[in-house]
Amino acid sequence: MSNPLDRIEFVKPADIEGRSFEIITSELGDRQLDPENELVIKRCIHTSADFDYADNLCFSEHAVTKAVEALKNGACIITDTNMVKAGINKRVLAKFGGEVYNFVADPDVAAEAKERGITRSAVSMERGAALGKPLIYAVGNAPTALIRLYEMMEEGTLPTPALIIGVPVGFVNVVESKELILSRDDVPYIVARGRKGGSNVAACICNALLYIASNNERLYM
Amino acid sequence: MSNPLDRIEFVKPADIEGRSFEIITSELGDRQLDPENELVIKRCIHTSADFDYADNLCFSEHAVTKAVEALKNGACIITDTNMVKAGINKRVLAKFGGEVYNFVADPDVAAEAKERGITRSAVSMERGAALGKPLIYAVGNAPTALIRLYEMMEEGTLPTPALIIGVPVGFVNVVESKELILSRDDVPYIVARGRKGGSNVAACICNALLYIASNNERLYM
Repeated sequence: MSNPLDRIEFVKPADIEGRSFEIITSELGDRQLDPENELVIKRCIHTSADFDYADNLCFSEHAVTKAVEALKNGACIITDTNMVKAGINKRVLAKFGGEVYNFVADPDVAAEAKERGITRSAVSMERGAALGKPLIYAVGNAPTALIRLYEMMEEGTLPTPALIIGVPVGFVNVVESKELILSRDDVPYIVARGRKGGSNVAACICNALLYIASNNERLYM
Repeated sequence: MSNPLDRIEFVKPADIEGRSFEIITSELGDRQLDPENELVIKRCIHTSADFDYADNLCFSEHAVTKAVEALKNGACIITDTNMVKAGINKRVLAKFGGEVYNFVADPDVAAEAKERGITRSAVSMERGAALGKPLIYAVGNAPTALIRLYEMMEEGTLPTPALIIGVPVGFVNVVESKELILSRDDVPYIVARGRKGGSNVAACICNALLYIASNNERLYM
């Protein structure tokens, strides 16, 4: 009887990611990706094993370049859940002077959300805006966070974000919340059109940007 | 001009999850799911907006019932990444006396992995087994963790797990590592066959089990 372990390909730990990107590139075949966005798209496929991200990711003009520049200048990241925060490479972010904020678990955020009948994620976005820092908003779960950001843009109360990452996942107002962001031509965004997204996708977009900022992207292509 | 916000459906924060599950149930249509596994499958769809999970999730016989029983008796969970840990409802787990372990970031795990030329995730699984506690292994990223668990079963060094959640995602040895677990008839498992999975999926399977253990599942169906 053959040993099932024989089917395992031996790949050194340090080479696993590179081998993954080779497979992704090969399976994308003739598909041409905008070189500015290529690494972000491939990392989303890498993190999800879902080639839908080659089609559904929408980038405002030079969103990647602008966000990378902001990160190099010390921009911080605010997330809508702790899971997105957990997935971000905080060591690389700190190298540039940035840090990750997440206010969802703060008791006063919960209290305010309850009182106003809105979600904690929506209140968290306001807390982020009030920091008065250059910020990337990384939204992987809560469409209500994206909706609140849109409302604040309409009200004129949102300092211009360095980037909005709009990749909440799910079934209630997810598609619609992303279309709100896509309707703005005055804000840099990366949005996964449709229902798909998630904490992993939000975190991996942040990491892709951080690796580009580190000139480290060749390791991952 | 119509206000784009008019397209947003008003749903109270507490009702968003219930409304999502209604949509999932409706889109599954006539599809019959095993009632024992239904909540787990629907939560995976909920967390990913990907109906592939209706097809790719494989359950060993009464894996859900066995894992729920173990959680009620205080079983702990070990994860292969910090992101899986971040996504687990630790409040509910603690109610039953359990906690979540993740050893990947421990400096001695990194040192040992480097010395042995294996991944930190693989070493972490050994650390988990050495705890001598009833354990659910939740693997959302590293096929090498699943492979190590299989090897330990072959060596006879793995105390029988309460459950193996095998949902790593990706391209290198991911499919093969899951097949190793699926080949065992002596261990309870929940495995997402194929390339898909992820931290979010691993965490949401843990949470589905916790909600069933809490008799709370009706809130989410």
